[in-house]
Amino acid sequence: MSDPLARRLVVIGLGLIGGSLAKAAKQRGLVSQVIGMNRNANSLEYALKANVIDQAFQSVEEAIAGCTDEDVILLGVPVLSMGPVLQKIHDHLKVDATITDVGSAKSIVVEQAQNIWSQMPSNLIPAHPIAGSEKFGVQAADASLFEDHRVILTPTGSQSDRHLQRVRDLWTGVGAEVDEMSAEHHDKILAATSHLPHILAFTLVDQLASMEEQTEVLRYAAGGFRDFSRIAGSDPVMWRDILIANRESIISRIDEFETHLEKLKAALGDSSPEQIQEIFERAQKTRNGFLHKSDENL
Amino acid sequence: MSDPLARRLVVIGLGLIGGSLAKAAKQRGLVSQVIGMNRNANSLEYALKANVIDQAFQSVEEAIAGCTDEDVILLGVPVLSMGPVLQKIHDHLKVDATITDVGSAKSIVVEQAQNIWSQMPSNLIPAHPIAGSEKFGVQAADASLFEDHRVILTPTGSQSDRHLQRVRDLWTGVGAEVDEMSAEHHDKILAATSHLPHILAFTLVDQLASMEEQTEVLRYAAGGFRDFSRIAGSDPVMWRDILIANRESIISRIDEFETHLEKLKAALGDSSPEQIQEIFERAQKTRNGFLHKSDENL
Repeated sequence: MSDPLARRLVVIGLGLIGGSLAKAAKQRGLVSQVIGMNRNANSLEYALKANVIDQAFQSVEEAIAGCTDEDVILLGVPVLSMGPVLQKIHDHLKVDATITDVGSAKSIVVEQAQNIWSQMPSNLIPAHPIAGSEKFGVQAADASLFEDHRVILTPTGSQSDRHLQRVRDLWTGVGAEVDEMSAEHHDKILAATSHLPHILAFTLVDQLASMEEQTEVLRYAAGGFRDFSRIAGSDPVMWRDILIANRESIISRIDEFETHLEKLKAALGDSSPEQIQEIFERAQKTRNGFLHKSDENL
Repeated sequence: MSDPLARRLVVIGLGLIGGSLAKAAKQRGLVSQVIGMNRNANSLEYALKANVIDQAFQSVEEAIAGCTDEDVILLGVPVLSMGPVLQKIHDHLKVDATITDVGSAKSIVVEQAQNIWSQMPSNLIPAHPIAGSEKFGVQAADASLFEDHRVILTPTGSQSDRHLQRVRDLWTGVGAEVDEMSAEHHDKILAATSHLPHILAFTLVDQLASMEEQTEVLRYAAGGFRDFSRIAGSDPVMWRDILIANRESIISRIDEFETHLEKLKAALGDSSPEQIQEIFERAQKTRNGFLHKSDENL
């Protein structure tokens, strides 16, 4: 086996994504040691027992205390907690370790880092693995979670090649395909492909829950609803943060969705079968094209 | 094996549902013979070769010509084609065979039958199996499709026990659980649990398809989107008909959804994290309750 990519992987906010990366990196020999930090002692205890991590800490300061230039610090906390954690890293990290994150909104991470360091630090590589599950917590960690999934890096141009390459190698090392784009572009695309679908699922399930016939509604919910609402089982705090962090892009996408829905409702009100069928056929075609593409690419 | 429930099952509009029922009924010995009617000769040819049916016809008149009191005629055509088919059955059926359907909207079937026969005929049992798939056509027929699924019957009170029991037995015979309710109530519940989710999925996919960044959007669509949009692959004509047939209930549910979405958008605009989190937590709780329930019941 070749040399490990990093001496040590420090996961701040050990949850599904951080835990899965820790497991995968250990199994594949990409790092020599994994350190986990979580405020929840039970999660840490589980992770130690399950051999997801080698050492556990409940504070950022302790977790990064022994870091060298050869280490990777990965932030897996909810998006609105990234700022406070970056601040602690800024205050306490005295070496040139690589810093990266897995937040689902990227502009906010870049902005907060720029505020904290006055400019984007050369060792911070914002990243977002397009992988996940409605499950959460380190207990759901899965070493194969990133295989054949994409990871988007959003460097700003200030990062050094050494750090950029290390983060690239870490993700390709666990089976992912790595792309790069600007944080703004990432946030616009993900608002459409991920954030909006989650909002629609949460909203639909909340609507059904508020119906008088709730029990019956759930009784007769079919498989389509089951798939559709799977993502409404996702972590509410994580998603609350994503919404607020990517608010502008998301509001634009909601507005756009409302316009499309109004158009369909109008066609239905007018009993315009051709128009309804046209919308459905276009959606079906796109959907099938997507399936075809993802078979090819993933 | 006990006597078959019916001598002959005649499936008018042989597609996924009719084909699956035909397969299941034959496998389980519930009927002695299956006749398929479809306007598409290729579907019939496939169904004969695959042994889904024993005899094929391209017209309703021919398909029902040899019927006796011991037969079941099942309508599997799109909802807005039910009326014309019922008219042909009215004009040509001279025996007391059981007539039933599998339409996803029920009031329209009842209304059309009442118009055609002047009153609800005692041998017509409107029904809706809550089972399906984004696949369609008899090629996708699956004998296990109804196992552990619910079937809702919406008799009006004018039906004779003999016919009602036969349709009940047919569905329980293929592994389904049978419930009864009014057509109006069915349409209200299904508008929420099935029709609205389909509309949201079609609308979302249509929206993404119309974005400038379409290719990229599909490239970065994650698993959540894949599940969510699965139902957007459903048959456009079938769904067009369902929407128009159940227009009023559906428009009410869309209005309600829009109100909920506006509430979330307002909370987001105000950056009100507590309110967003509350909505998400309620949805998550409902969703998990649903999973629990469906494990128990299905």
